[in-house]
Amino acid sequence: MKNFKLIIEYDGSCFHGWQRQKNMPTVQEEIEKAIFTMTLQKIILSGSGRTDAGVHAMAQVANFCCYTDLTPEIFLRGLNSLLPSGITIHDCISVDEDFHARYDAVSKIYHYHIINSRWPSAVFRNHCWFVKKELDIDKMNIAAKYLIGSHDFKSFEGSGSPRKTTVRRVITARFVKDKTDLYVFKIEADGFLRYMVRNIVGTLIDTGSGKTSINQFQKILSAKNRNNAGITAPPQGLFLMSVKYI
Amino acid sequence: MKNFKLIIEYDGSCFHGWQRQKNMPTVQEEIEKAIFTMTLQKIILSGSGRTDAGVHAMAQVANFCCYTDLTPEIFLRGLNSLLPSGITIHDCISVDEDFHARYDAVSKIYHYHIINSRWPSAVFRNHCWFVKKELDIDKMNIAAKYLIGSHDFKSFEGSGSPRKTTVRRVITARFVKDKTDLYVFKIEADGFLRYMVRNIVGTLIDTGSGKTSINQFQKILSAKNRNNAGITAPPQGLFLMSVKYI
Repeated sequence: MKNFKLIIEYDGSCFHGWQRQKNMPTVQEEIEKAIFTMTLQKIILSGSGRTDAGVHAMAQVANFCCYTDLTPEIFLRGLNSLLPSGITIHDCISVDEDFHARYDAVSKIYHYHIINSRWPSAVFRNHCWFVKKELDIDKMNIAAKYLIGSHDFKSFEGSGSPRKTTVRRVITARFVKDKTDLYVFKIEADGFLRYMVRNIVGTLIDTGSGKTSINQFQKILSAKNRNNAGITAPPQGLFLMSVKYI
Repeated sequence: MKNFKLIIEYDGSCFHGWQRQKNMPTVQEEIEKAIFTMTLQKIILSGSGRTDAGVHAMAQVANFCCYTDLTPEIFLRGLNSLLPSGITIHDCISVDEDFHARYDAVSKIYHYHIINSRWPSAVFRNHCWFVKKELDIDKMNIAAKYLIGSHDFKSFEGSGSPRKTTVRRVITARFVKDKTDLYVFKIEADGFLRYMVRNIVGTLIDTGSGKTSINQFQKILSAKNRNNAGITAPPQGLFLMSVKYI
């Protein structure tokens, strides 16, 4: 039995998220189908975690085990020739039989793109959230600092999350101004609850626009109650940037 | 008679270029239809120049004249509510009756995005040209310097260009490395021939990949013969960034 690790980029607007679903194209299913074409084996592709419909990935990590003589290089070329243009496999690496993309992940980095302008972007409308209200990036960054460290993130959890605990450790969380109108929120944590990044961004935007204070943001976090938080930011602004392993 | 100037962003992948065509959605036609809805007048929208199918614009400039009591602010809001999501009007300004978006343009800036990696980008596939061959950006920049100044750009002209002369004055032309794999070619000129930027990029790539020398690039430019130049780079990498007026 051999174990292969894949580094995967995908355009979230083409799929109904990562995880296999009935009658919906998903990233996991597309890649599993392509691996079946190459190996004639019904494998299960384990991702580092799910991403929701519309969410993009620059470097999702997944692994699969199978009996094969095919090399990683052959998988890399074969999968890229079989997969639709909304999915690119950037690397295929032979790994130890016990490597697991989800259980072995140490941390993940997400970016969330916001275009803060009077009118939405025509060109980048599928790659950002358009926020019209003027945002105070310094205020958002002061609030974001409260996220750093180990906290119960229940306030930012979407319903239906599969988890044992709602405590996560956030390593970095800050907004960076990229181009004139573009704010990128960069967050790294040892794990994420369902909708966690999008709920955090939706809540930070309220602080940035003056709807809530920095103090209120801190209270929302410590309340451990989703009802106090802001809206869930839309999926198309979110990018899974990388997954770290030891 | 009033004259209005529009600043327009559009996603080239949604339209068959700028210019009105039979039975094809174009940017010019969409905006003219929206202005008709607001004014009941069949106006002609004059763009600063055409862009081809697939080419994007961050700030195309156009103007139209009509009899109206509507203010620029009303046009701005009305057009954005009527237009499809692939077009955004960023500004509408009242201008002198003799202002003409094309004749008065002093220079234009285009950017061309290249992703230079082993595999194409899934997320940005509609916003860049994927070039697999390793590129020497320094060599391309030395070659690009020969473009600066007034030259006959016949070697880089696509057929069917409407023009009196093939001489244009290039003000800046250079590649900038933006992110890891992204090269942006930035070119400003007093005017552009049809396919000029895309033909220049296609020819510079040959120099960057070692297929041609810097000396050969210079000879291609001075030959005034399209047959010597490289391929026409695909449209989705090209962005009209701005149009300058006195």
